[in-house]
Amino acid sequence: MRAPGEWDDIEISRAQTPKPVDQLAQEIGLLQEETEAYGRTKAKVRLSLLDRLREQPDGKYVLVAGITPTPLGEGKSTVVIGLVQALSAHLKLNSFACLRQPSQGPTFGVKGGAAGGGYAQVIPMEEFNLHLTGDIHAITAANNLVAAAIDARMLHEATQTDKALYSRLVPSVNGDRRFSPIQIARLRRLGISEIDPSALTPQEVSSFVRLDLDPAKVTWQRVVDTNDRFLRKITVGQASTEKGHVRETQFDIAVASEIMAILALADGLGDMKTRLGRMVVGSSRSGQPVTAEDLGVSGALAVLMKDAIKPTLMQTLEGSPVFVHAGPFANIAHGNSSVLADKLALKLVGEDGFVVTEAGFGADIGMEKFFNIKCRASGLRPNIVVLVATVRALKMHGGGPNVSAGSPLPREYIDENLSLVAKGCSSNLRKQIQIAHLFGVPVVVALNVFKTDTQAEINLVCQMAKESGASDAVPCHHWALGGRGSVELAQAVKQASSQPSHFQFLYSQEKIRMIAQKVYGADDIELSPEAKAKIDYYNQQGYGKLPICMAKTHLSLSHLPEKKGTPTGFTLPIRDIRASIGAGFIYPLVGTMSTMPGLPTRPCFYDIDLDPVTEEITGLF
Amino acid sequence: MRAPGEWDDIEISRAQTPKPVDQLAQEIGLLQEETEAYGRTKAKVRLSLLDRLREQPDGKYVLVAGITPTPLGEGKSTVVIGLVQALSAHLKLNSFACLRQPSQGPTFGVKGGAAGGGYAQVIPMEEFNLHLTGDIHAITAANNLVAAAIDARMLHEATQTDKALYSRLVPSVNGDRRFSPIQIARLRRLGISEIDPSALTPQEVSSFVRLDLDPAKVTWQRVVDTNDRFLRKITVGQASTEKGHVRETQFDIAVASEIMAILALADGLGDMKTRLGRMVVGSSRSGQPVTAEDLGVSGALAVLMKDAIKPTLMQTLEGSPVFVHAGPFANIAHGNSSVLADKLALKLVGEDGFVVTEAGFGADIGMEKFFNIKCRASGLRPNIVVLVATVRALKMHGGGPNVSAGSPLPREYIDENLSLVAKGCSSNLRKQIQIAHLFGVPVVVALNVFKTDTQAEINLVCQMAKESGASDAVPCHHWALGGRGSVELAQAVKQASSQPSHFQFLYSQEKIRMIAQKVYGADDIELSPEAKAKIDYYNQQGYGKLPICMAKTHLSLSHLPEKKGTPTGFTLPIRDIRASIGAGFIYPLVGTMSTMPGLPTRPCFYDIDLDPVTEEITGLF
Repeated sequence: MRAPGEWDDIEISRAQTPKPVDQLAQEIGLLQEETEAYGRTKAKVRLSLLDRLREQPDGKYVLVAGITPTPLGEGKSTVVIGLVQALSAHLKLNSFACLRQPSQGPTFGVKGGAAGGGYAQVIPMEEFNLHLTGDIHAITAANNLVAAAIDARMLHEATQTDKALYSRLVPSVNGDRRFSPIQIARLRRLGISEIDPSALTPQEVSSFVRLDLDPAKVTWQRVVDTNDRFLRKITVGQASTEKGHVRETQFDIAVASEIMAILALADGLGDMKTRLGRMVVGSSRSGQPVTAEDLGVSGALAVLMKDAIKPTLMQTLEGSPVFVHAGPFANIAHGNSSVLADKLALKLVGEDGFVVTEAGFGADIGMEKFFNIKCRASGLRPNIVVLVATVRALKMHGGGPNVSAGSPLPREYIDENLSLVAKGCSSNLRKQIQIAHLFGVPVVVALNVFKTDTQAEINLVCQMAKESGASDAVPCHHWALGGRGSVELAQAVKQASSQPSHFQFLYSQEKIRMIAQKVYGADDIELSPEAKAKIDYYNQQGYGKLPICMAKTHLSLSHLPEKKGTPTGFTLPIRDIRASIGAGFIYPLVGTMSTMPGLPTRPCFYDIDLDPVTEEITGLF
Repeated sequence: MRAPGEWDDIEISRAQTPKPVDQLAQEIGLLQEETEAYGRTKAKVRLSLLDRLREQPDGKYVLVAGITPTPLGEGKSTVVIGLVQALSAHLKLNSFACLRQPSQGPTFGVKGGAAGGGYAQVIPMEEFNLHLTGDIHAITAANNLVAAAIDARMLHEATQTDKALYSRLVPSVNGDRRFSPIQIARLRRLGISEIDPSALTPQEVSSFVRLDLDPAKVTWQRVVDTNDRFLRKITVGQASTEKGHVRETQFDIAVASEIMAILALADGLGDMKTRLGRMVVGSSRSGQPVTAEDLGVSGALAVLMKDAIKPTLMQTLEGSPVFVHAGPFANIAHGNSSVLADKLALKLVGEDGFVVTEAGFGADIGMEKFFNIKCRASGLRPNIVVLVATVRALKMHGGGPNVSAGSPLPREYIDENLSLVAKGCSSNLRKQIQIAHLFGVPVVVALNVFKTDTQAEINLVCQMAKESGASDAVPCHHWALGGRGSVELAQAVKQASSQPSHFQFLYSQEKIRMIAQKVYGADDIELSPEAKAKIDYYNQQGYGKLPICMAKTHLSLSHLPEKKGTPTGFTLPIRDIRASIGAGFIYPLVGTMSTMPGLPTRPCFYDIDLDPVTEEITGLF
């Protein structure tokens, strides 16, 4: 028999049979009518639970963030899982992990699956990594229905008279002609109180039937959950049936859809529906914002999203509960798990329990968005930040050679090198701790130990982390040992979370500059003319008070992926600005950041296979 | 209280609480381990059932097809459901309905939901009409992964040397360099027996790494399950990161994907995987076909489709079992439910039972494809065809005025008009009966009765149907009465299915012309130069023996939607020809038939809404 660490992730995953999800649900206190099974190992949890547990005090709220990662990732999800396993099984505290649903882009592209690894996994990993319970597919369908509605509407308005449009939009059905509720809502926004279709003036009819969208000012994009770089810029409408109404546009990766952000930030079905309705898809030729509700599509969107809003219950390898909800990509989206999953979990664990939720990538982006966007929306306040570091990433920030997927690791990363580690600690690690402290929240550093790390390296990281202001810093061995390897972290987290936290938001105005300077360490920002014009327009539309969701590389504190450590002396370029009015944030695009990843020459899919007899899947890790 | 027929479809649907799906599964003889619940009212059924029931004799196999419909549809799905309800509850025979999963294109576009109506519905209709168990989403994801792989591969080949491509495609991992199984399969196809990567000659390396796809000869399209007409013709690759490799292409509606056809025609996981691997995506500059397996993506496709291959179990309003599997659009796809659903159902009902499966649209397309494509693939032989007619559609074929969605029906369709009915019977109804007889299968005509139909009209249709060769012809009242309204049909079907059936395929060669002349009644076909060139190429590639899947309008026997009745004196234009080598058919595009529908001025989505408090959905019917 092999020792721990000598088994493949997939072998470990298969060796453990997950308990039936209805048993798991019962263990954590769910009533039978509060779950909807999807197969034997996943269940959606109904939001009625929040009503039932309204009076229950919340548990402690732990955010797991990271230092700036290498392109290989530093195992943040495994830390979350290991910590919850340790809290549950070893400290006997109710606890819950809140993770995000993986995107199929990375799963079939560069990164592979995202179920954790070693003895800190969500199982079954293939259920986690593939369609899950269909949330991202529902988002894709809803997003693209809006897009189809926009282009079809522009065509119909361009080719029909007011009268023809009106007779089609408000048809006579068996002699009865009336506005639908969604049309009455539009009349209200136009200041028209009349609800008899035959009584509108020609001017009122015209303003009702014409959204008058400016094709050059449509901001809504189509999405796919695939790394399809050829869709980054496209021209649509080139068939003769579209009568010359061609237009340049693009596809984004599905998890960057505003509808994903709404799923993550909504606090219930009603709130989600309201947010979907007020999504701004572009502006009219006279400069007025046009919303999904103006298109008449917001009810249909709510219907498409009715199941996606329920978090999915799964389990770790050691049987601890996990909510999987909302999506990744904290670089090009807000990239946090959902407000609803966190709220449900906080009620389920109760006053003495712990909810461990993950923010994507480095603390400069995932954590910053968690605080400034997610906590603003939820009203929840974190007790503590766990900041994940690895010796590998610290060496890179200390000046080690380039690390890239598919290439062998240079020797510096395999042999002991205290000098590189020290330089990495005093630059990137220190800076990320300081960023958490900007928000007034205590930090515990979790060093995710690899087998090539030496004891001297481990000691050095823990010592320097504490010198940089961390409440505590401990090594974690969950990959090799599961929850048992994270007991020290669990104790440190329990200890630190009894300290007072003095949470504060970072900004109320000058928001983009504030994030750039205080969080990223930039000297200043530089707005492109396009970005400037957008800011003026959004301010004029009254969106000036919304928080900010920066689309920035996760591979550096700056906008330049190759700048490791703590870059200084740079100006952050803002290329363009989008507005996600339904989600409730402004979305600056930093530098050359793309909202659609590409496939490498040898994508992960080469190694993914299914045995048609055993039905076993290979290559998803 | 209102009489039957005075309740809305949605009220009827809500008034009936579906039995728990595990209870339904138990009633029809499924073991607990053979189902995977998706919520409380849907379950996927595992294919292991086929092994367990291998020795069980099949039940009777009934195909429901129709005359050429009006754009409103003639209620074929309701006939299927009513018939199964009558067979089950009133004739006490095991029976099963096999329906297709609706596409979100029509659901949010013109047609609305597809769960049947009145007292012949699948419930809950919102589960049926929305994401179901995610099969179409899985198809979309798989289809678009292939598309992304094609364009990325062409870019990588255009911008890298053989050596660079080879070192990336076959990387050294910890000093170990080897081909993956899918790469070894490609080497075999290239006639290279060497499996040591370092031993290939430069010429062998070059032929291994270069698929050399001709961008002008890529036949694979992207898909979305949305009516998005602006994607009918697009240009991709216009971002600077794609270095000028722009290309014209298009999106189709998702159910027209070859992967949907494979799902419908595969007889198991192994067969599906083989078919996915041999899908031809285009040809190389030297004219060789390039497959999904050449792209290295076929294992990943099988993984994405591993759950979709299991049919979904639901129930009718009266609790009879229904399999929902594969997709609609018998005009632009093959549009039949799956071979696997039918096979599972035939085993489950047993020797004396009945399986009623539906072919889309008129018998000239849905039924023709059922016989020539689906029965060829499955080896199953139908006992009887039920041909659905309505007085409304017959009047249209008899010369009645235009019928269109959203416009009030002209008086001819509301008042008795025996002359129009008679003309419709002697043209379209007679022709569709004759088409079924071409295949040697007996026909029972089911007249789907509307409340405006008079007794004289009903009698006339039944009499003329029998004069035209139908074994029987009966009126059905399932919409108003449920199974009780279809007892007469059930008895006729039971009676007719005891007659001998002399099933034969229509063609073995000259296939397109044979369908055009024998089925549609065309004088001849006319191939465009493009179609001619494709036929030559496909013959040369050895695809000449594959059956044919015509993409033709469903609104006429001819290629011209306005030609009703039995058009004659026309030549059928074949605009282009595609090949679905994995699915196993050749796919001629007839006339101006589009593979992407559009949205009307007032799409269905205007009326679709969700009450966030009660969670009730409106507008899906």
